[in-house]
Amino acid sequence: MKKIGKSILEINLSRIQKNYLVTTKKLKKGVTTAVVVKANAYGLGMKEVSKTLYEGGCRDFCVAYVEEAFALRKVCDDASIIIFNGLQHNEIEIVSSNKFIPVLNDLYQIELWNKWGKKSGQKLPGIIHVDTGMGRLGLTESNFERIAHDPKYTEYIDIKYLMSHLSCADTPLSLDNERQLKLMMKYSHMMPNVKVTFANSAGVYLGYDYQFDHVRPGCAIYGVNPIPSWPTPVQQVATLMGEVVQIRTIEHDQTISYQGRYRAHKGDKIATVLCGYADGYHRALSNNSFAFYDGMRLPVVGNVTMDMIMLDVSSVPETKLEHMNYVELLGDNITVDELAFRARTIGYEVLTSLGNRFERIYK
Amino acid sequence: MKKIGKSILEINLSRIQKNYLVTTKKLKKGVTTAVVVKANAYGLGMKEVSKTLYEGGCRDFCVAYVEEAFALRKVCDDASIIIFNGLQHNEIEIVSSNKFIPVLNDLYQIELWNKWGKKSGQKLPGIIHVDTGMGRLGLTESNFERIAHDPKYTEYIDIKYLMSHLSCADTPLSLDNERQLKLMMKYSHMMPNVKVTFANSAGVYLGYDYQFDHVRPGCAIYGVNPIPSWPTPVQQVATLMGEVVQIRTIEHDQTISYQGRYRAHKGDKIATVLCGYADGYHRALSNNSFAFYDGMRLPVVGNVTMDMIMLDVSSVPETKLEHMNYVELLGDNITVDELAFRARTIGYEVLTSLGNRFERIYK
Repeated sequence: MKKIGKSILEINLSRIQKNYLVTTKKLKKGVTTAVVVKANAYGLGMKEVSKTLYEGGCRDFCVAYVEEAFALRKVCDDASIIIFNGLQHNEIEIVSSNKFIPVLNDLYQIELWNKWGKKSGQKLPGIIHVDTGMGRLGLTESNFERIAHDPKYTEYIDIKYLMSHLSCADTPLSLDNERQLKLMMKYSHMMPNVKVTFANSAGVYLGYDYQFDHVRPGCAIYGVNPIPSWPTPVQQVATLMGEVVQIRTIEHDQTISYQGRYRAHKGDKIATVLCGYADGYHRALSNNSFAFYDGMRLPVVGNVTMDMIMLDVSSVPETKLEHMNYVELLGDNITVDELAFRARTIGYEVLTSLGNRFERIYK
Repeated sequence: MKKIGKSILEINLSRIQKNYLVTTKKLKKGVTTAVVVKANAYGLGMKEVSKTLYEGGCRDFCVAYVEEAFALRKVCDDASIIIFNGLQHNEIEIVSSNKFIPVLNDLYQIELWNKWGKKSGQKLPGIIHVDTGMGRLGLTESNFERIAHDPKYTEYIDIKYLMSHLSCADTPLSLDNERQLKLMMKYSHMMPNVKVTFANSAGVYLGYDYQFDHVRPGCAIYGVNPIPSWPTPVQQVATLMGEVVQIRTIEHDQTISYQGRYRAHKGDKIATVLCGYADGYHRALSNNSFAFYDGMRLPVVGNVTMDMIMLDVSSVPETKLEHMNYVELLGDNITVDELAFRARTIGYEVLTSLGNRFERIYK
């Protein structure tokens, strides 16, 4: 590859389609799917990702913000769009006129939406969110009981689903999964004619019991292993090729990068690569990760800086060094899950951190 | 403040001007300044920040990429723009015709630029970068000697500065500072008629010896304390007000957020705030930071999620809870340096991580 003065982030759209297929194949008959494309499709580009999924047959999507719903509508004009954050007072009219489906996370949002339905003389589509153990959004048990027992609260709401969210689905042995499942079943019985949406990616892979009527995969579509202790069912989607802008031979022993946290010795070869923490290559990877080139793992040495990292490339033969214009920083050989482990986080944060100074290529 | 369905990132431009003034007041007479505005002005908005600095008298700026130079030129059309990454083969013509000033980081870049100057029959402005201990970019000692001893290498280059970069300036007691300073003086003597640019923000505050002819402050302008062990000379620039979207009273003991890493008890009040790691609120802050509201510090409980965090707000009186629409996540009370310390990183990374789903307000 010819040098272009910046690193290259390649998003493999056909693998996104494959991950979608492989994930939906895990579903019992009749279960439908809305793919989560919030946060710019986990950093990979909502426009391109949604279009690809749409072409692959996906018609339902989930976002967090109203703005994201708008951006998505421009790409997929007949898609069904669920907004996780629900709605604030100033957003009701926009959400309603655009036929977005808000997740109603508390009594306040239910009341807002129901009143608006009454005012406009029609039932408005909405999702009732009840907390089963995540403790983030959703009705508490007592508030849910009020809603379930008194139909007036939701008289003007066309309840598409009863929703809840798993907190520990990536840990199959966690007792919390079963506890949440039992609560979900209990709540579902209290609203017998309403479909249920419960599972995220990991929930899908936990099996049929967790799938109910509708699932909301996210991370698996983007190549993150939904259940880290199991073999990954999905393929890597993002490949980050860092551009090598300089290779130096150390002339006297010296430290590399800020705070001098790595000592290089005379004769060592150090490559400088265009990718730093401002590009989403976490500073936590300082002295603690690798790049991949031609079958070799090249250690990141010294602190990650804002725009660049340094690699010890002493092990690369001189003849190969000449052609080393790009190295893999993330991809099939340094997976998103490995990079996350090294940065003491999860694959999701690795993806959402990816910056906008790369050349982005969709294939 | 009325709820708007998203959190608010306020950038205080007048404090940017103040930080610029306070920093340039530390300079000995005659020393000039180029402010570093790479990486979208450390995440705070290059357009707005540069315009403000320009109005405050700043005419010289530094960026990392050619694209950043272009974006800057649109805002400040007669500014002098230094490009740290130097140039690749395909960028020469653009850099030259736009009168950008490349930092020439190795023999290859010097040769490219010199040849282009010869071809166009004029001396082109450039900066010669020599490594004194950072080990990232810049000529090695032996390569610098070649350049210094043989004027043909730079015959068609109008050398604006001889440049180097400090690696440990934020640690005044580090012996590396003196070591780099001595090398810089030695190299400067080898190119006696060329001005020197050496100090970053911390270097400016280390004193006159480190300032030479020209300095390149960055972090101090944006409110990061350049020397953490000294009292900060600058003011906070970024204030992040997280929108509270739900407050729940816990009905039965339960865990909060993914992996159940925080246990809330019956009667606890938990607030959910619109800001997650996709917005740059690092997951490393899970169970390890605070929000600020009305004189109180409210702990972040449970894991930071992609779009939201949870706070224990049990200590806030009921009457105040009603009006708690926004809480400070970053600002005068939770400084960028504190947030960085809690996330086991530096203020720079906190700023460059800030996302684009906030309502950004410049004042």
